[in-house]
Amino acid sequence: MNANVPTDICFSFAGFKARGGRTDHHKDGWGVAFFDGKGVRKFLDPQPSCESPIAEFIKTYPIRSLNVIAHIRRATQGQLSLENTHPFQRELWGRYWIFAHNGNLKDFQPKLDGYFQPVGQTDSELAFCYIMQSLLKKFGLVMPPQPDLIAHLQKITTEINNYGEFNFMLSYGDNLLVHCSTRLSYIERSAPFRELILKDEDVKVDLSHETSVTDRAVIVATIPLTENEKWVQIPQNTLVLFHLGQAVQQWQTGDVFHTPFHD
Amino acid sequence: MNANVPTDICFSFAGFKARGGRTDHHKDGWGVAFFDGKGVRKFLDPQPSCESPIAEFIKTYPIRSLNVIAHIRRATQGQLSLENTHPFQRELWGRYWIFAHNGNLKDFQPKLDGYFQPVGQTDSELAFCYIMQSLLKKFGLVMPPQPDLIAHLQKITTEINNYGEFNFMLSYGDNLLVHCSTRLSYIERSAPFRELILKDEDVKVDLSHETSVTDRAVIVATIPLTENEKWVQIPQNTLVLFHLGQAVQQWQTGDVFHTPFHD
Repeated sequence: MNANVPTDICFSFAGFKARGGRTDHHKDGWGVAFFDGKGVRKFLDPQPSCESPIAEFIKTYPIRSLNVIAHIRRATQGQLSLENTHPFQRELWGRYWIFAHNGNLKDFQPKLDGYFQPVGQTDSELAFCYIMQSLLKKFGLVMPPQPDLIAHLQKITTEINNYGEFNFMLSYGDNLLVHCSTRLSYIERSAPFRELILKDEDVKVDLSHETSVTDRAVIVATIPLTENEKWVQIPQNTLVLFHLGQAVQQWQTGDVFHTPFHD
Repeated sequence: MNANVPTDICFSFAGFKARGGRTDHHKDGWGVAFFDGKGVRKFLDPQPSCESPIAEFIKTYPIRSLNVIAHIRRATQGQLSLENTHPFQRELWGRYWIFAHNGNLKDFQPKLDGYFQPVGQTDSELAFCYIMQSLLKKFGLVMPPQPDLIAHLQKITTEINNYGEFNFMLSYGDNLLVHCSTRLSYIERSAPFRELILKDEDVKVDLSHETSVTDRAVIVATIPLTENEKWVQIPQNTLVLFHLGQAVQQWQTGDVFHTPFHD
């Protein structure tokens, strides 16, 4: 989620939580990170989200944020344990970075110099460490201007994308960077707000009661979460930058086989 | 808390939570980190713990761990915000490190080389980054044997301790390292377990129902949490290593003005 005013994710999380073991097979743990300024609040649980007491708490307790990254895991590489639970977190340039990955990288064995080392055994955390290392190597110890930063992230993403499915979400709190390797959709919400209906749970919400006319929020998910909105499917091999609740720019990270469409 | 079997902190946390704004004035946010293997689950809230819904959840939901660090903040340096909320976390040598500080460092302005940078404005996070940098500089990119590691931590602690009150807790998941600059006490619990009574809440627990004869756990706190146990006051300027529920070694980090006693 990326928004222009602090927004809670209780509605979306209700559907998302169900996919962790009930309406979908991503039952090997879950996590969610909420930025608040430069700070971040992260909740992790190696239990399936559909039966996690912490997930139940998050579903009902509104934590408002401009940038949220949530993940439900289906283990491909690395055992079921807390250290392998997404999203992952590191600090670089006095900012926290949050990363979650959907997919599977094969034979991805980058040389790490040691400044960012994986704690667990997933290909995902390894890719994250490689991204952080690459940023540090490229720009040194001071954060570069955003266009330079994202140009380099496009380059690294294109490189890693060659090793397999590499859908990810990345944020350092100012914006949300999303890579669609195979499958990701988003919906931009702005006034006039209306009633929304979840796909995975028998839940409706009327956003017009809680919002003002200038509010904007975008929700990105592997599979659309609502059944009465026109989600935009992101083209494969595309990096998208979301800022203040809108898709603001996108870049290619490989050959494009599909063009965007409304489902 | 440091234990030899995964142990929850629900009982101690009930008293601790009350000190964050009700029975004590540490009302500027709170946080707690639970290690689970090499992974860590951290809950942070800039609200007072005595009225935090997340703290209420933690009080009742048993998360079992060998090493737990909890902190309630009374702001001295740095505004009341999420990024200034303890405990802090960094990764080094493929391990997460967790740090919480009680005290106030004055004119502490170490030169940071940039590999570990504070996200917030506290003297505490700055000291933590300086410790991590010093470990990296001393040992390079591979984790040293524990005795070398702790010998160096004693040296850095002694250095930082010159700048003011520097009570802290530090863990990378294998053990708990505690520094008493001015005030810290601990209690070691082992069989026979008995009924304990909290100081800050009208709560009793009979540990004999939930434990086996080989269980050991140590609780360290600024001020003893129970009223019917003999807590050991740690001498000032002393670093103590806790492992598997026992104090195993201690080192001096400056002149000692007080000797340990039982209260």
